[in-house]
Amino acid sequence: MAKTSQMHLGVFTLGTGHHVAGWRLKEAQAGAENFQLIEQIAQTAERGKFDLIFFADALNTGPKVHPSVMVRLEPLTLLAALAMRTSHIGLAATASSTYSDPYNLARMFASIDHLSGGRAAWNVVTGAFPEAAGNFGHANHPPHDLRYAIATEFVKVVKGLWDSWEDGAIVMNKATGQFADLSKMHELNHKGEYFSVKGPLNISRPPQGYPVIIQAGASEAGRDLASSIGEVIFAVQQDVGVAKAFADDLRARAAKAGRDPASMKIMPGVCPIIGSSEADAKAKLAALGEFSDPVSALKVLSERLGQDLSPYPLDGPVPTLPQSTVMQGHAVTLSALAKKHNMTLRELRDYAASAMGHRLLLGTPEQIADGLEEWFVAGAADGFNIMPPWFPGAFNDFVDQVVPILQKRGLFRTEYTGHTLRDHLGLPRPSHPTAGMATDAIGQAVAS
Amino acid sequence: MAKTSQMHLGVFTLGTGHHVAGWRLKEAQAGAENFQLIEQIAQTAERGKFDLIFFADALNTGPKVHPSVMVRLEPLTLLAALAMRTSHIGLAATASSTYSDPYNLARMFASIDHLSGGRAAWNVVTGAFPEAAGNFGHANHPPHDLRYAIATEFVKVVKGLWDSWEDGAIVMNKATGQFADLSKMHELNHKGEYFSVKGPLNISRPPQGYPVIIQAGASEAGRDLASSIGEVIFAVQQDVGVAKAFADDLRARAAKAGRDPASMKIMPGVCPIIGSSEADAKAKLAALGEFSDPVSALKVLSERLGQDLSPYPLDGPVPTLPQSTVMQGHAVTLSALAKKHNMTLRELRDYAASAMGHRLLLGTPEQIADGLEEWFVAGAADGFNIMPPWFPGAFNDFVDQVVPILQKRGLFRTEYTGHTLRDHLGLPRPSHPTAGMATDAIGQAVAS
Repeated sequence: MAKTSQMHLGVFTLGTGHHVAGWRLKEAQAGAENFQLIEQIAQTAERGKFDLIFFADALNTGPKVHPSVMVRLEPLTLLAALAMRTSHIGLAATASSTYSDPYNLARMFASIDHLSGGRAAWNVVTGAFPEAAGNFGHANHPPHDLRYAIATEFVKVVKGLWDSWEDGAIVMNKATGQFADLSKMHELNHKGEYFSVKGPLNISRPPQGYPVIIQAGASEAGRDLASSIGEVIFAVQQDVGVAKAFADDLRARAAKAGRDPASMKIMPGVCPIIGSSEADAKAKLAALGEFSDPVSALKVLSERLGQDLSPYPLDGPVPTLPQSTVMQGHAVTLSALAKKHNMTLRELRDYAASAMGHRLLLGTPEQIADGLEEWFVAGAADGFNIMPPWFPGAFNDFVDQVVPILQKRGLFRTEYTGHTLRDHLGLPRPSHPTAGMATDAIGQAVAS
Repeated sequence: MAKTSQMHLGVFTLGTGHHVAGWRLKEAQAGAENFQLIEQIAQTAERGKFDLIFFADALNTGPKVHPSVMVRLEPLTLLAALAMRTSHIGLAATASSTYSDPYNLARMFASIDHLSGGRAAWNVVTGAFPEAAGNFGHANHPPHDLRYAIATEFVKVVKGLWDSWEDGAIVMNKATGQFADLSKMHELNHKGEYFSVKGPLNISRPPQGYPVIIQAGASEAGRDLASSIGEVIFAVQQDVGVAKAFADDLRARAAKAGRDPASMKIMPGVCPIIGSSEADAKAKLAALGEFSDPVSALKVLSERLGQDLSPYPLDGPVPTLPQSTVMQGHAVTLSALAKKHNMTLRELRDYAASAMGHRLLLGTPEQIADGLEEWFVAGAADGFNIMPPWFPGAFNDFVDQVVPILQKRGLFRTEYTGHTLRDHLGLPRPSHPTAGMATDAIGQAVAS
């Protein structure tokens, strides 16, 4: 079966698992600071021939946050460590364009791409949590559209910095004493609305040209950003029809922006609850539910919907809320789900507790595979970010029981055929903007 | 021999070696982006029972910089990778307090300390190169004293963030569902002159309490900062008497600041040129000199002295220059050396080309060991940062030929006796500010 008809898989990793109470299971190992566990997850994903392992991030913590993210290893240093303990799998980390500096961040992702031999990916986020502002000396979290405008320029600057050195610029010619071919070095000299960055960056062009860009925007501004720069789209979707419409919309926007829509891989989050039978899977979900702390669970939902829900009656309908300015993808999807199924607040709370607001797939390995195939065949997804409810067992089950079915159906690779994350995703390596140009055109190209 | 009478050793790593032309030797492996080489250096240092491996940094590059630092792996991601490939050696990286953010940097060093099991160190620099400003949207590099004032507050904030969680705060009690003991979580609520940071940091207290702080300030402001926060002092010294006076001055300042002067390890840089005889060592230095590009060599000296020296006649005396505002330690030391030996500009250029302005030790392994012992016994140094002229051979020679002599003399450990960098250096783990306090005093202590 041709490569283009196979899906892509990532494992989205929160140290305690995605179910709000997953860490409390007897078999669960917990902790986003538990490197041995994270290493095991990465190696299991690599055994399952996954495209990538993916780490969330947030720049704040406190008593109100989900145990999964209260404390954790910093994602960029974590990727560098995992690069040493894996050989093929892509390594993706979230980093904020609101509270980072483009020169420092461009260096770090380039460095990880070098250390890993071309396996780095950057999930560009604008920062969903306003609490971060206080950690960075800002009186206020910038409003939504401003954050996206900053992000657009931020990514442009970072890509420009990655182009500071053409391939082959560092010649290290011992005989002549020439260390670098300075005709292949380019200053950026960016002066924009939000950033002014001279360059060049002090690291060679990354093995992948640019590390893979992941984006998860769901709002209007978010979709524009995602369709203009996103190579992997991390989406929150509950319904195949809505997901297909979302995917089609993003692909149309990408085409309008002059991109090949096939160069964008849409990978919604999915939480699989796998059992030997459907009843067994339901029993597993119920067992997780018994461990749930109702207060934590309601906090997860409140965060997703952008409003404190504790004043509302649990057995009443899900209240109609003003438009969220923080996690619009989650807010819209969960509100639609509640309306469709006429859910009470309690029911929506328990649903969101399971998968942090993402799609829940429940059943036998075959049923899970069916649920993935359905969306893939419908064009609603190019792949999936698997969000196990707890670690490591629930993820081991997916790799050992679901992946072989997908492989048997020809829907997923049985072996890596390349070495870089771009290879796995079937994405071309971006060429340097000056490639193939006559020497006298280079200055102009770089300046433009 | 008691631990306190043994010296400490670090290897200061520049990918192409410290001699400006070291990379051109036939046996040299070059490149600060060559991870296999850097890994080999770290493992050789660990085999030699070194305290630490230490990476320089700068936030700019361009045609004028030394090949060693034109392109390189980003130091923090590099440390995380090395943590996976080593087991005992301390891992030190340079990071700027002028062009970093305290929340992001505190997280990263904490994360590296967790990943390495307590082996991280942060070399606090204020940024010697004004060219960095243009990469961070600043019209100008802040002046020297302002940079040191910012650094002082920056380090205070970072330490405060490292204290966000007391030891044992993350309980992960599966039975009760309690994830964290929130009475052990502390907001920082810092509002200072340059930073406003709320906290808490989203990572547990580092295994070392605080990663080890390295400082290399040599100016008045630099000495104040070094003696108030530095646990390892990286110094540039050429003369044992001057070095002793510098060490005594720092120890006196530390005592005045209420610190135990023994909790500060002064480790000047030393470039060893090792031969089977003194004549052989001199021949090696001459061979390196033959590869030197005079223009690059003069650039190194110009950088160290803070002024472009190309207009001055090479065979005239070293000119008297205005006080440097960039690398005061280098400028003062090299100027004094030139005056003492009545050097021409050419002679000083060739000396600085060898060791980037640091002390050159030339001779047999015994002579090198003598040169280190002399300073150590005199109280001019608690140890040394070894700066090999090229890699990997010149460093292998030090570990294989000089270290055994130091060990035989009882001047250096023959085995690691601890696991953290603080263990190696004999530095206590800083206790949490609330340790041992009654509960009602905690709020006050954290607020103060």
